[in-house]
Amino acid sequence: MDVQLAGSHGKMNGMPTDLSPTPRSTIRKSERARRERSALYEVLDAGLLAHLGVVVDGAPLVLPTTFGRIDDTVYVHGSTGALSLRAGTSAPVCLTVTLLDGLVYARSVFHHSANYRSAVIHAEARLVTDPQEKLDALRAVVEQLTPGSWTHARQPTAKELAATTVLALDTTEASVKVRTGPPVDDSADVQAGTAWAGVLPTRQQWLPAVPCELLPPGSTVPAHVADRVASNC
Amino acid sequence: MDVQLAGSHGKMNGMPTDLSPTPRSTIRKSERARRERSALYEVLDAGLLAHLGVVVDGAPLVLPTTFGRIDDTVYVHGSTGALSLRAGTSAPVCLTVTLLDGLVYARSVFHHSANYRSAVIHAEARLVTDPQEKLDALRAVVEQLTPGSWTHARQPTAKELAATTVLALDTTEASVKVRTGPPVDDSADVQAGTAWAGVLPTRQQWLPAVPCELLPPGSTVPAHVADRVASNC
Repeated sequence: MDVQLAGSHGKMNGMPTDLSPTPRSTIRKSERARRERSALYEVLDAGLLAHLGVVVDGAPLVLPTTFGRIDDTVYVHGSTGALSLRAGTSAPVCLTVTLLDGLVYARSVFHHSANYRSAVIHAEARLVTDPQEKLDALRAVVEQLTPGSWTHARQPTAKELAATTVLALDTTEASVKVRTGPPVDDSADVQAGTAWAGVLPTRQQWLPAVPCELLPPGSTVPAHVADRVASNC
Repeated sequence: MDVQLAGSHGKMNGMPTDLSPTPRSTIRKSERARRERSALYEVLDAGLLAHLGVVVDGAPLVLPTTFGRIDDTVYVHGSTGALSLRAGTSAPVCLTVTLLDGLVYARSVFHHSANYRSAVIHAEARLVTDPQEKLDALRAVVEQLTPGSWTHARQPTAKELAATTVLALDTTEASVKVRTGPPVDDSADVQAGTAWAGVLPTRQQWLPAVPCELLPPGSTVPAHVADRVASNC
């Protein structure tokens, strides 16, 4: 079945590229690869969550995380006690962002697939110690998930900053994969015409905001939140 | 910032559990842990994509993949050439499914968070060689992403089956983490009342199906596809 996405970032194909200088970051199905650095940033900037992989005692550990980007660096953060951040510091990590755009219904189950965009970054994570870089990184993480919150909400105290670990990932070694368009069926199945085929598009939908019950009476939903819902209806 | 999700599956807390017998699969913030096996299945069954982590030359590789579940086993599949499946066979893997339910706007950026459900499975992947198990697994994978497609579309040929690798992951070692509800703010920030706080719920929205242009004239969208859109409007 071509519903498979796994494994598709992964073999040398020898093509020139703006991204992906290594075998593990070169796309197997080369027609799905994007080679421009701008494509990497587009996928990253459209993502809400990433999945961060680290190695713990020789085994992989994959956890969801928020993230942010500044230029060619991606930042993740977490509690200073977090196993994944301790395991990832000065160690190889993999950060993957996947956006699902549609389900591809083919005439055979084998050719079923998904339309999606994915970015995979391989890096050795660097612990961020510079106070200004740390603050900038946290701002990028907050603004990626909840644009407008950094200036609207109270910013972090020294104590809160001390309780937070920030890791930086260089995006030099990365790959981007994109599938779009209709199913690609065997011609015999198209001729047979016995099964429906097409794409079911999907997107992230925002529903009306649910205000906290502890807000002062008469509070209204601010524009940076309300506009997000409006843009999606 | 509590926008962090990473690292939250990860420390021993000594609590009795139906899941999670090991340190790496025990949740750090124990109030977010779910300990019933049924909770694991609920998260898995609601997922469209998983992220599969394997170790390649000592470094993690995290790729998106479709998946399916039969009882206590999760299956993933891919081309026989896929690096991630070769690296994962008879080796430790980690499969993570994350469902984003909402963004949590707090009065401080530190307490910003997300409402989500996540399942993390640690297993040594087993190559599926039994023909019947392989077929059942592929059916589960197809039906997870596109319910109704297995009987509607043409089923796999022997050649298609031979081109497909299926891995089985036992779900014995797994953890489930769920965050729900409003922001949890410092009382001083609640008293100050200067920032809006609340939750912006989100969900996967299905848009109207886009039929393949090669369908016979007069083809209609079948119920197993059309009903999905109807359920989401």
